Amino acid sequence: MLTRQIIDRVVRNALDEDAPWGDVTSELFIPAEATASARLIAREPGVFSGGEVLQRVMHAVDERIRVSSLLGDGEPFEAGQTIAQVEGPARGILRGERVALNLVQRMSGIATLTARYVALTTGTRARIVDTRKTTPGLRALERHAVVCGGGRNHRHSLSDAVMAKDNHLAVLTARGLSVTEAIRHVRSRLGHTTHVEVEVDRMDQIEPVLAGGVDTIMLDNFTVEQLRDGVALVAGRAIVEASGNVNLDTVAGIAATGVDVISVGALTHSVRSLDIGLDVEIEPALPEDLGAEDLGADR
Amino acid sequence: MLTRQIIDRVVRNALDEDAPWGDVTSELFIPAEATASARLIAREPGVFSGGEVLQRVMHAVDERIRVSSLLGDGEPFEAGQTIAQVEGPARGILRGERVALNLVQRMSGIATLTARYVALTTGTRARIVDTRKTTPGLRALERHAVVCGGGRNHRHSLSDAVMAKDNHLAVLTARGLSVTEAIRHVRSRLGHTTHVEVEVDRMDQIEPVLAGGVDTIMLDNFTVEQLRDGVALVAGRAIVEASGNVNLDTVAGIAATGVDVISVGALTHSVRSLDIGLDVEIEPALPEDLGAEDLGADR
Amino acid sequence: MLTRQIIDRVVRNALDEDAPWGDVTSELFIPAEATASARLIAREPGVFSGGEVLQRVMHAVDERIRVSSLLGDGEPFEAGQTIAQVEGPARGILRGERVALNLVQRMSGIATLTARYVALTTGTRARIVDTRKTTPGLRALERHAVVCGGGRNHRHSLSDAVMAKDNHLAVLTARGLSVTEAIRHVRSRLGHTTHVEVEVDRMDQIEPVLAGGVDTIMLDNFTVEQLRDGVALVAGRAIVEASGNVNLDTVAGIAATGVDVISVGALTHSVRSLDIGLDVEIEPALPEDLGAEDLGADR
Amino acid sequence: MLTRQIIDRVVRNALDEDAPWGDVTSELFIPAEATASARLIAREPGVFSGGEVLQRVMHAVDERIRVSSLLGDGEPFEAGQTIAQVEGPARGILRGERVALNLVQRMSGIATLTARYVALTTGTRARIVDTRKTTPGLRALERHAVVCGGGRNHRHSLSDAVMAKDNHLAVLTARGLSVTEAIRHVRSRLGHTTHVEVEVDRMDQIEPVLAGGVDTIMLDNFTVEQLRDGVALVAGRAIVEASGNVNLDTVAGIAATGVDVISVGALTHSVRSLDIGLDVEIEPALPEDLGAEDLGADR
Amino acid sequence: MLTRQIIDRVVRNALDEDAPWGDVTSELFIPAEATASARLIAREPGVFSGGEVLQRVMHAVDERIRVSSLLGDGEPFEAGQTIAQVEGPARGILRGERVALNLVQRMSGIATLTARYVALTTGTRARIVDTRKTTPGLRALERHAVVCGGGRNHRHSLSDAVMAKDNHLAVLTARGLSVTEAIRHVRSRLGHTTHVEVEVDRMDQIEPVLAGGVDTIMLDNFTVEQLRDGVALVAGRAIVEASGNVNLDTVAGIAATGVDVISVGALTHSVRSLDIGLDVEIEPALPEDLGAEDLGADR
Amino acid sequence: MLTRQIIDRVVRNALDEDAPWGDVTSELFIPAEATASARLIAREPGVFSGGEVLQRVMHAVDERIRVSSLLGDGEPFEAGQTIAQVEGPARGILRGERVALNLVQRMSGIATLTARYVALTTGTRARIVDTRKTTPGLRALERHAVVCGGGRNHRHSLSDAVMAKDNHLAVLTARGLSVTEAIRHVRSRLGHTTHVEVEVDRMDQIEPVLAGGVDTIMLDNFTVEQLRDGVALVAGRAIVEASGNVNLDTVAGIAATGVDVISVGALTHSVRSLDIGLDVEIEPALPEDLGAEDLGADR
Repeated sequence: MLTRQIIDRVVRNALDEDAPWGDVTSELFIPAEATASARLIAREPGVFSGGEVLQRVMHAVDERIRVSSLLGDGEPFEAGQTIAQVEGPARGILRGERVALNLVQRMSGIATLTARYVALTTGTRARIVDTRKTTPGLRALERHAVVCGGGRNHRHSLSDAVMAKDNHLAVLTARGLSVTEAIRHVRSRLGHTTHVEVEVDRMDQIEPVLAGGVDTIMLDNFTVEQLRDGVALVAGRAIVEASGNVNLDTVAGIAATGVDVISVGALTHSVRSLDIGLDVEIEPALPEDLGAEDLGADR
Repeated sequence: MLTRQIIDRVVRNALDEDAPWGDVTSELFIPAEATASARLIAREPGVFSGGEVLQRVMHAVDERIRVSSLLGDGEPFEAGQTIAQVEGPARGILRGERVALNLVQRMSGIATLTARYVALTTGTRARIVDTRKTTPGLRALERHAVVCGGGRNHRHSLSDAVMAKDNHLAVLTARGLSVTEAIRHVRSRLGHTTHVEVEVDRMDQIEPVLAGGVDTIMLDNFTVEQLRDGVALVAGRAIVEASGNVNLDTVAGIAATGVDVISVGALTHSVRSLDIGLDVEIEPALPEDLGAEDLGADR
Repeated sequence: MLTRQIIDRVVRNALDEDAPWGDVTSELFIPAEATASARLIAREPGVFSGGEVLQRVMHAVDERIRVSSLLGDGEPFEAGQTIAQVEGPARGILRGERVALNLVQRMSGIATLTARYVALTTGTRARIVDTRKTTPGLRALERHAVVCGGGRNHRHSLSDAVMAKDNHLAVLTARGLSVTEAIRHVRSRLGHTTHVEVEVDRMDQIEPVLAGGVDTIMLDNFTVEQLRDGVALVAGRAIVEASGNVNLDTVAGIAATGVDVISVGALTHSVRSLDIGLDVEIEPALPEDLGAEDLGADR
Repeated sequence: MLTRQIIDRVVRNALDEDAPWGDVTSELFIPAEATASARLIAREPGVFSGGEVLQRVMHAVDERIRVSSLLGDGEPFEAGQTIAQVEGPARGILRGERVALNLVQRMSGIATLTARYVALTTGTRARIVDTRKTTPGLRALERHAVVCGGGRNHRHSLSDAVMAKDNHLAVLTARGLSVTEAIRHVRSRLGHTTHVEVEVDRMDQIEPVLAGGVDTIMLDNFTVEQLRDGVALVAGRAIVEASGNVNLDTVAGIAATGVDVISVGALTHSVRSLDIGLDVEIEPALPEDLGAEDLGADR
Repeated sequence: MLTRQIIDRVVRNALDEDAPWGDVTSELFIPAEATASARLIAREPGVFSGGEVLQRVMHAVDERIRVSSLLGDGEPFEAGQTIAQVEGPARGILRGERVALNLVQRMSGIATLTARYVALTTGTRARIVDTRKTTPGLRALERHAVVCGGGRNHRHSLSDAVMAKDNHLAVLTARGLSVTEAIRHVRSRLGHTTHVEVEVDRMDQIEPVLAGGVDTIMLDNFTVEQLRDGVALVAGRAIVEASGNVNLDTVAGIAATGVDVISVGALTHSVRSLDIGLDVEIEPALPEDLGAEDLGADR
Repeated sequence: MLTRQIIDRVVRNALDEDAPWGDVTSELFIPAEATASARLIAREPGVFSGGEVLQRVMHAVDERIRVSSLLGDGEPFEAGQTIAQVEGPARGILRGERVALNLVQRMSGIATLTARYVALTTGTRARIVDTRKTTPGLRALERHAVVCGGGRNHRHSLSDAVMAKDNHLAVLTARGLSVTEAIRHVRSRLGHTTHVEVEVDRMDQIEPVLAGGVDTIMLDNFTVEQLRDGVALVAGRAIVEASGNVNLDTVAGIAATGVDVISVGALTHSVRSLDIGLDVEIEPALPEDLGAEDLGADR
């Protein structure tokens, strides 16, 4: 779900931020014509995400840089494995290095963490999905990373699905509607492609919500036992999403209750960047006989 | 070092991302004229950062929302403490909620983590500083959070200070200059306000680097013993920065070696968002006698 | 589904386009301090849409202009009726006039046309919805206008719902999957909030598509008789959308077939701007005794 | 008068709007490496406009897509005629399709309508020109389309020519100037390249306006007889523009009065999009022996 | 011809450039709550331009800053005269100072230089006009400054008037048209509001150009005698513009030849910024008893 | 310190400003397929700056234009010398001409002026540096031009170095700190890479400032004798910058006092654009036998 337009906007902002008026170090130490080759290397195992981002960062700093991916997005790697190779003007590669790493490490961190959650739910019907707890400005990239890790995406934003909580329902019930009527009322005013999800905190809220007609019912902070009972009660009349208290210790138990979807805020809101490095070798590419006295001409 | 222009750009992007064509849920459930009051509440202890960000998010969604800060940036709080109060149109507060929390939780997470590092170095001359391993697009906010936690900022970007590594020096030494000559050569071509920092990996590199004239020498991946020797060798001729293998377990020992600066990538590149919530109470503010049959008029 | 951020972006672009370096006429004829009052008047009957747009245009040209709406979005009006009143600096009102009218006329044209379609389907279960045939750059405004006219919105964009046509299915069937398998395959990889709609051209395609599990089935270019049969065949297993050959002459017949949704490209892709004008009265607001010889000082 | 910079800005906005985070359907159904060929086909006769726009849309979604134009802007076509051919990655072509059609259909609609007006005035001195009643954000494209249809452009915006109406003149006459003096006053303060046009509603206004020195006099809402008398009265002392009540039924009669220019708001403010389609054929381009079990690897 | 939208765009860019991540000096030395008052003072005599720019710069850095203008744009001042007063938060005023001065000094420099040229042509029919030799990004501001100095504006850009030179005419004459035919050909394809100006280098080119029908004829690099002959030859059939070799020594002689317009590139392409300063007085506004030990709380 | 991103932003703005909706002259006179060759020629001697800018302007108007530089940035040229050659579509070259010249003339003017200052200080330790008195929006380009002329750059902006003046110090001394304590206080709160410069007006301020610990001390408006005494007093404890009353007559004397840095506002704030022209030759590139009657088809 990544488009070049999204990536390029992120990359342009990041480069403006990281080198607003150039890379003073490289411009002084490295001749404009020097080239370099670099390898993107994993320092720990994980799942890759960010191949196109790496390409676009390098393209943005210098169109002559070539990136060859050895691994596609979503593929696992071992510590020490080379993920991609980069060739081209040395100054450009060094200028793009940090921005590329900051993005790729984060995206691969998310993909790797997602894959761990997914692995713990194998054999169940439960899908691991993300939340809106993403890094402001990077949502599309982070959602892509979740998919790379085997997860699925929840709604993208406030605009593309209804997610009603206590607060929302209370406004209409305060005006004399039952919960069921409130949901029906809203549903009747929605376009047919907009998914309706309602969050409940207690078992007795399930029936009235289902009666209103929802696509998904979210059981928030239910215990594993309550989730199992909730799934039985819903009985296929809506998709069941579990939310709250989900972590690597609890996710398998939650998945075993038969829920359809488990949303995990931790996938994106506290991610550890994966240790991936860029090993750069600069080839000054200068004639042998160039003396130090000519150094002044390199800019 | 935060300006309104920086914050507003981040906020605008974040709102575009999180509600590109509005908040479908609130627009259906909540009348336009309903108001709400909300409290920003800490669910765990920490150090606050992000007060102006919260203000600008709410201002951006609806200019009528009022934010009252009970705590300034850089101040500590306990679990359960109210950090700020928000009053105004309900739809606006709900639309801004997630973006505000995503930013404030992250910034306060960074400030809190920084404060832990700073506390562990109390009584030493060492300052905790950040790195360029920040989230693309959020650097100014994250650097501000580091300062809120009692840290200091390293260079902002590739543009505002020289940071030379092996790679850079090798290019000039391959052309026949000694390390000392290479640094002098570069120094002579720089503006006088640009700080020059050079990274070394081994003890024997220190003298030639100092001879070239540097403002800061970075001792990269030195052991604690090596750091102590390095500090003795530099003997005040440059600022000494320790880098590499810095974590909450090692930082006190590193600080005790007498280094001036300790740079910590972990401050920003793998931060855990702090658990801070927004408790919203909606006051529908509707006439008592409004019947359900009128609901159709609320948009 | 309109946010101030969306409106302001449209308005800023429009003003840049319509007065890139000011309004040469007003700046020469009208003193800076002259004020004006204006009325937005309908020259033909219709349904209003664009109240907030009018406000934001005038706010953008001069923050001192006040707009009072006499009619809310979605309300009908007669020829000759005053829809809103505008007061403030004359130069600003004249500069904003054309941009405001171009937007409000178009939006009210869409709302009015939509209302005609909706009126023709009263008493049936069919909802009138828009398509992606909107004016590039104005989609959010035009979708809002459809809702003002009593219509509903289809998916906003390519990103927020699946809409599979022949072309899409053919790719997977060419690889050995049946249509049913192809849809199941895709469905399994989607997030749970993403609506799946599949278009069919023939009656015999309905069963295999339904077997794959879709939320909506679109019957494209079916005759009224075929639509009736299609509705019977689907029998509530999916939402039924009719598409193709929909106009003011045919829509009632199509609605009577029992379809749930009728999508009408004409709502937005060939809209007639409604005749709405702005009657401006300028009050020069100058001291009585100002002589013509002083005119030179007015800029 | 179209520049690539203008087109690209429109295209970028349109793609952001139509696929903010990708095309979920194509990404699921169509492998990244599949290619397609497509033909832009007229479904009704008309005059083409938008060739470069089509090119830039396709270039924006994927630089590898090739567009071959069979028809230049301004050339007529028959129903069924192929206007252009498009080849390249299938996902890209499908993502660009709707945006390209929305623009090309509208532009060709304007060109075709303009050509009808122009045809009706053949043999007279009258030129058909557009107005500022264009779609906000698309003015440059729509003005180009008018030229493609054989029309001419009126002023581009409020900034590049004076167009004074009653309202403007009244401000100065209220201050004691005659109409003639008011126009002279303004004229003396203008740059020499700025065209001055004044609108009159009655025959007796013509002489005083001409006496002030104008480049064009606009006769607003004059009958055909009045226009003829007006042309005689002006007698070549200014360009004569007819405005108001211009439609396909009246334009020939108006043109026959000897006016120089006829401005037609309808050219752009209520245009019907021409029926032009894109027939896409996808070539999956996959090895024969690829089994369905491998489908999971296609993203 | 300045709009707030144009000014704000220039100001925003300038502030991003001059304080990308804040004003490190003021943030460390000056408490957030300190206020200041400042006076914009002329250090040499001149003509003012830039009042609204000053206001918008200060508004952009802090909405609470108040600017009172003592002098309007276009008014003359003496050395030592106070032009405007500024009151508000000290940090904001200091942050805006340099950007405001850079713009106001330049604009007033242009206005002052223009006024000198205008004064030298008093009593002639000649108008002093600018050219397209403006500072990229600041054209609208610089054109406004020319008007403040009593000059007039030439065309704004390549888009709003025809200006044909040798090069352009040669293309059509190479294809067999005479100069007269070439101009007629172009004229027939232009909108009626677009001014047509043609440049000639020799006296014998005047007649054929006039025969083609032009609004303005530019006599390029003519001597004073040639200009006088040229004016006589044109004899009112077109506006006559003199261009080339115009400076403060020659302009009076050129104006005396009877030309209508004298274009002066030097007005904007080599302008000396006028010496205007901002005298700032900071009032720390702190309680008397605040001890130095509390200084740590000021950020 | 120029990046393509910076240049392209300047170029895009400049082209939007200079040809917002195309070049009406070239589009009418010159066929789309005509090519041209052009030479960038110096009309007076100087030092070149702006080679990449010329390239990017031409690339922006038409990617097919080829620019060959005969001279690198920072190289001197004679009057009459060809600096670069440009080949490609004629319309594009003409559209880019003015923007390219406006930028290159200004940049080369700055480089040339800087070189004159530098030449006058040869043999001294003094470096010529710029100030923040640059053209808003063009700072990076103008700073680059200073380097091309042999100068060095001062701080880029308010964000990247401390520069404290009377005003700043007075705020802290009013609160009971001595100047020395005030500087120490600030220094302790700064990151280690941020340069600290303090301005003094009198000799007796030097010792307290040095005692606080500064990197650079600026002696403002000191006479040559005072500068010599100041240098002696500082005695290497800080970099010494001279500021004020620097011009081509005084700079040699100032440099001879032994100061390290001389800042010259005049380098950028009142620059004379260098006389550099673009000689364009259009090759219509049309078949011999094309008759005038076909001219209508050229757009």
